[in-house]
Amino acid sequence: MSETIFSRILRGQIPCHRLYEDDRVLAFLDIAPLSRGHTLVIPKEMADTMGSLSDESAAALGRVLPRICRAVMRATGATAYNILQNNGPAAHQAVMHLHFHIIPRFESIVEGSPGGGLGIHWPAGTLDAAQAKELVTAITSALIEG
Amino acid sequence: MSETIFSRILRGQIPCHRLYEDDRVLAFLDIAPLSRGHTLVIPKEMADTMGSLSDESAAALGRVLPRICRAVMRATGATAYNILQNNGPAAHQAVMHLHFHIIPRFESIVEGSPGGGLGIHWPAGTLDAAQAKELVTAITSALIEG
Repeated sequence: MSETIFSRILRGQIPCHRLYEDDRVLAFLDIAPLSRGHTLVIPKEMADTMGSLSDESAAALGRVLPRICRAVMRATGATAYNILQNNGPAAHQAVMHLHFHIIPRFESIVEGSPGGGLGIHWPAGTLDAAQAKELVTAITSALIEG
Repeated sequence: MSETIFSRILRGQIPCHRLYEDDRVLAFLDIAPLSRGHTLVIPKEMADTMGSLSDESAAALGRVLPRICRAVMRATGATAYNILQNNGPAAHQAVMHLHFHIIPRFESIVEGSPGGGLGIHWPAGTLDAAQAKELVTAITSALIEG
């Protein structure tokens, strides 16, 4: 995995607006926020995507999310929020060090406008029985491999 | 917290296309998928949003995400994916039992079209020094409260 702005933040070479830190996790403000309080939560482990993160770091990240979410919501007065974690440039990952976005939503600000948080488009399809059976077989087999 | 389709799935009252299960977590296929292999990962604990989930369940959810992501990607051949977790109706939460979406992205399918995964709009703003200072103070204070 190559050097990123986040690994440089972790080594103290670039400053950040730090919110939380423990042995495995760092949280800080996004400097290009989608809304007020937009927060990034990253593992200290060098991993670009969720699939390449260790179980231990993934558990540590998960464990602090409730506490950080409560604090961001209480501090900003937001009423809703999205947690987003993008893996791969084709999925909008811009910095190749794994990061969770916590993005507050303010009902007074229209979604998709500045400060209005994450804009979401949801083109849902359907799942037929044959597709479901094939996917369950393929994914459960892949899970056994680890 | 009131009854949802997911709590009924957890009690076995409604079937699901099960992919993974342990003491604290269940994963199954989304029946209205944004792309092939769209997977839901839920805690067995009754919690509507991330902020109301226990640390233990949040850690258990986090711990299995890498393994489930790897399996979904390997089984579908997707090259990228988004992990999304919506909190509150204003943030597109449709079922009021906490759930992570794992949404594969296929570069051959245009984002926002059927099968193309999550459509994302990113109206990024800026963070000035005064706003950052105020937010860091407010969020770190709220974190101390837990």
